Amino acid sequence: MSQIINHSFDAIPQSYLFSEVARRVAAFRAAHPERQLIPMGIGDVTRPLCRPVIEALKKAAEEQTRAESFHGYGPEQGYDFLRRAVQAHYAVFGVQLDAGDIFISDGAKSDLGNLPDLFSQDCRVLLPDPVYPVYRDSNLMAGRKVEYLAATRENGFAPLPGEDLRADLVYLCSPANPTGAAYTKEQLAVWVDWALANDAVILYDAAYECFIREELPHSIYQVKGAERCAIEVCSLSKTAGFTGMRCGYTVVPQALVREGKSLRQMWLRRQCTKMNGVAYPVQRAAEAVFTPAGMAACKEDIDAYLKAASVVAGALEELGVWYCGGKNSPYIWMECPGRQDSWRFFDALLENAGIIGTPGSGFGENGKGYFRLSAFSGEENARAAMERLRAWLQS
Amino acid sequence: MSQIINHSFDAIPQSYLFSEVARRVAAFRAAHPERQLIPMGIGDVTRPLCRPVIEALKKAAEEQTRAESFHGYGPEQGYDFLRRAVQAHYAVFGVQLDAGDIFISDGAKSDLGNLPDLFSQDCRVLLPDPVYPVYRDSNLMAGRKVEYLAATRENGFAPLPGEDLRADLVYLCSPANPTGAAYTKEQLAVWVDWALANDAVILYDAAYECFIREELPHSIYQVKGAERCAIEVCSLSKTAGFTGMRCGYTVVPQALVREGKSLRQMWLRRQCTKMNGVAYPVQRAAEAVFTPAGMAACKEDIDAYLKAASVVAGALEELGVWYCGGKNSPYIWMECPGRQDSWRFFDALLENAGIIGTPGSGFGENGKGYFRLSAFSGEENARAAMERLRAWLQS
Repeated sequence: MSQIINHSFDAIPQSYLFSEVARRVAAFRAAHPERQLIPMGIGDVTRPLCRPVIEALKKAAEEQTRAESFHGYGPEQGYDFLRRAVQAHYAVFGVQLDAGDIFISDGAKSDLGNLPDLFSQDCRVLLPDPVYPVYRDSNLMAGRKVEYLAATRENGFAPLPGEDLRADLVYLCSPANPTGAAYTKEQLAVWVDWALANDAVILYDAAYECFIREELPHSIYQVKGAERCAIEVCSLSKTAGFTGMRCGYTVVPQALVREGKSLRQMWLRRQCTKMNGVAYPVQRAAEAVFTPAGMAACKEDIDAYLKAASVVAGALEELGVWYCGGKNSPYIWMECPGRQDSWRFFDALLENAGIIGTPGSGFGENGKGYFRLSAFSGEENARAAMERLRAWLQS
Repeated sequence: MSQIINHSFDAIPQSYLFSEVARRVAAFRAAHPERQLIPMGIGDVTRPLCRPVIEALKKAAEEQTRAESFHGYGPEQGYDFLRRAVQAHYAVFGVQLDAGDIFISDGAKSDLGNLPDLFSQDCRVLLPDPVYPVYRDSNLMAGRKVEYLAATRENGFAPLPGEDLRADLVYLCSPANPTGAAYTKEQLAVWVDWALANDAVILYDAAYECFIREELPHSIYQVKGAERCAIEVCSLSKTAGFTGMRCGYTVVPQALVREGKSLRQMWLRRQCTKMNGVAYPVQRAAEAVFTPAGMAACKEDIDAYLKAASVVAGALEELGVWYCGGKNSPYIWMECPGRQDSWRFFDALLENAGIIGTPGSGFGENGKGYFRLSAFSGEENARAAMERLRAWLQS
């Protein structure tokens, strides 16, 4: 008898990593209502939206109250005003995009989850490990097998393809979640050359590009040839504190063709069929991010998060705990003291220091014995957390 | 050699129906810039958002400017305040839902496009014909075959299952897009009984429930047993003019289990993995829809659209043109004069009366020779359009 349900769902863990973290935290809070916990787990921002964004949002809200300025269904791929703003943002990195290559969406997670729709059921998917679980789970749900490329301390958590590597679809994230590792332009060029030689497609997650402060590529399209092998996904969640506003963008270059098909055309068809664009007021708010005033305000927020990251990094250094990240990234990827089990350290850190982090093993095999701390709760929290960590580890 | 691209995309028409309509209209406008066209095509609303909604949106925007009231990532399935408001809305129809059955999303189109993720590749999909193209295209894209059930003038465009009907997944829309036909409670009970007897699942699209003014079910859950065989999708697009705001909701009852799996649990997993919820300000705006002031304002808007629909219906009656719909629905489904080709009538109507409509054949085989007019452009436009139609048809 044929089955009605998609049993590929059985292949994925019943609970999403961050839901399990939330569950354990809730249980701990219930048992210890008096304890003040410091959240350094999930990658959510804490600094409020900047004034230019709010003013744009409110102005658009008022437009929606009058028939003559009312906006109903917009273009599924986003309004031209916002696509042009994104286009101009890329030009700052020296990347010239066709506005038609840019698709506005309700966030990077949606696009990363939905982009597999464009690929065949049996295409070979390669993920770095450790990895943002969405890459893995969205492919497993669709019944695809996934293979892993080890990201380890030895390769700086930024693995490169060997000559014998074979895959059709590769996910890269730089600066990476969860490790904070970032590829150099030369390293990305190795990936692009490999993809072109193998007719592979790279899904490049640039969600953390705004944290880059050193000479590192903000976009894979800064590498020549990437427009023929890469799709890039980005978001305003981290750039502008849009986690609660839901707006991102994905670039599918016109030059990206496989088996005679334009992936840009396919993505347009997918989006036109299965979504209806992003709220008009949200798109106006997003447009304001890319104004000089918006960009200046956002940079100030990111600098503050980076300051918090440097506080964590400095404390770990002082404590002799191995870590990476914390530069060009809001994440610090630390070794669990004694290389202990990640979830055991999660519980111990919660119990002994009242700090909420994220177990590295939740991101994959190579995350075992590691732990992710996020700088999004700000400098004050970072200082307090590091005080507690110091007191605990030295006790 | 295995393929990398999903070639099921080749099976669907290159252009989405409404994109083709837009293309022809743009070409006509370019050739005849002096002509004033009356838009009675796409189902977009035209009346602005009501004041309670805008005030809620602006208030939420202000909350986002202060750290202490800032909302970042929300629950993927929506905030409790909105799920409870939807729950209360259902209670008005006598339907008691668990709040956990309710999932907030960025619209019915997204949910209808994404719900097939839960079902197996080879499940038997049945669609009425004519049909909203999203049901068809989202399944074809995923490589599924679809079968059709004829909705015809003879069955009032509201087909019922015969005893020998076999299918796993059935889409129903009531009041229907594009025909305006609405099922009675007795007819829906026939579908529910059939689904329960056949272990099938009904995807019930209630996007137009707010137009119901007669004694007809607003929800399939008004039929006993539906909680064990139906998923219901609804939206604020038509209820509250949210086409540009993007907010809808889907109900997956806890009692809906197939092959040992809870579909509610699967949908939660899908949503947690592949999306990040709806913008907080949009959810606050949606909450305001369900307040007494919001509901009163929305009813006024819908009454105005229904008035416009009655103007169209009255004119067609007078002209002796066969039609259905126009009651409990913003759509009027008319026969093309002389049963001519739908696209030919589309062009002729544009050319001779300056009216934009939607060709029935775009909705399926049984739409051939029919045409959809929408009442969303309002009473004044409806009167002007009917004047022009009368002048043309009587000339």
